Amino acid sequence: MAMKTLSAKNAAALDKDLMSIGAFSLDQLMELAGLSVSQAVYRVHPPSRGRRILVACGPGNNGGDGLVAARHLWHYGYKPTIYYPKQSKNDLYQRLATQLKNLNISFTDDFPTALKETDHIIDAIFGFSFSGEVREPFPAVIRALEETRIPVTSVDAPSSWNIEEGPPKEGPGANFNPEVLVSLTAPKPLVKYFKGRHFIGGRFVSPDIKEKYDLSLPEYEGIDQVVEVGNNGQKL
Amino acid sequence: MAMKTLSAKNAAALDKDLMSIGAFSLDQLMELAGLSVSQAVYRVHPPSRGRRILVACGPGNNGGDGLVAARHLWHYGYKPTIYYPKQSKNDLYQRLATQLKNLNISFTDDFPTALKETDHIIDAIFGFSFSGEVREPFPAVIRALEETRIPVTSVDAPSSWNIEEGPPKEGPGANFNPEVLVSLTAPKPLVKYFKGRHFIGGRFVSPDIKEKYDLSLPEYEGIDQVVEVGNNGQKL
Repeated sequence: MAMKTLSAKNAAALDKDLMSIGAFSLDQLMELAGLSVSQAVYRVHPPSRGRRILVACGPGNNGGDGLVAARHLWHYGYKPTIYYPKQSKNDLYQRLATQLKNLNISFTDDFPTALKETDHIIDAIFGFSFSGEVREPFPAVIRALEETRIPVTSVDAPSSWNIEEGPPKEGPGANFNPEVLVSLTAPKPLVKYFKGRHFIGGRFVSPDIKEKYDLSLPEYEGIDQVVEVGNNGQKL
Repeated sequence: MAMKTLSAKNAAALDKDLMSIGAFSLDQLMELAGLSVSQAVYRVHPPSRGRRILVACGPGNNGGDGLVAARHLWHYGYKPTIYYPKQSKNDLYQRLATQLKNLNISFTDDFPTALKETDHIIDAIFGFSFSGEVREPFPAVIRALEETRIPVTSVDAPSSWNIEEGPPKEGPGANFNPEVLVSLTAPKPLVKYFKGRHFIGGRFVSPDIKEKYDLSLPEYEGIDQVVEVGNNGQKL
């Protein structure tokens, strides 16, 4: 049985619905998305496997999810470092960055050096709204993620991948295969090219929205904000 | 060893700090506070003990925490019912209520009947900013909470209790002893009059704020958003 997925267009429409008829603020949704990511990282890479987490954040909402995840991971006892080269002037993202600075979490501009000093990487560069080509300074970052042997958890999409068609045929990302993917709200079509551990996060979808977008979401357990699924989209 | 507590005045100042120098939005803080409450309820009253949860919400932030907790509890598989007689015109609270209506969660005006049809109660009526006397329509609600044998989880303070001095000498609340208390951010002085199970929630305090307010917070475990403590404030 193939997994039901949410196209890039429908993912954008669903997000809009969550904030209009759903009455969620972006602050709330991003808090819960980042919390999901932090719980998946705790599951695949508990603190006993190394506390250093490098969080690579892009300029948009995917980067915001990474900033929130980093804060929760700090509270769990990890030592995050943030690579956030294109910081948005948007008030919410600025506040999320300040929240990290208040925890004395360090920000770096030197991705290659940071990569040598981490135990795990969160790829929060591009999400479901990515299309076209990878812009500066991210091509070198994507190439470094392709080459590193440090495990990577991607948020919503392996950065550089086309949401519908998966990895690019050539250029940065053509050989990028993260170990872990956290699909937010629902998996996107690119999951059929993904071979690692797959989690669904974002436990805030109402029955109406589930029906409108024909989502087939696995059941979360207990108070978990993530659920691990197999290739067929069923709970593992 | 006595537990370190946070006076009503300092609790208000700390909240203000979280939103100014801390750069948190009220949406974020309320989301995390309500999440903490939902996790404490799951711990003391798992779904196997009965899924019906009556959430009594007051007009302010304490009520907002209750609305958020109710949403998370629905996602955990509970059946919440909301008593929210003084609904605020504040945009955030209205959105939190809409989020519940989108889950088909029912709102009731009839507290006595709702009390007969629940397995657990969340008291989110008044929090650390309460002082003076209990206003209509809440005196009858507090009396009902005093008399019921259904277990009650209070958010931040047993409603009607003075934040510094505990239960009122007479009138509604003089004999109100909830089974569970979730202190948000840090315990208030009233905890020395409280005899039930005590949790701390709100895992977002920075080292600076901890130092400024001389808080002695127990360590949370793993990804938990609550931690249970004993009479001395130490983790159980």
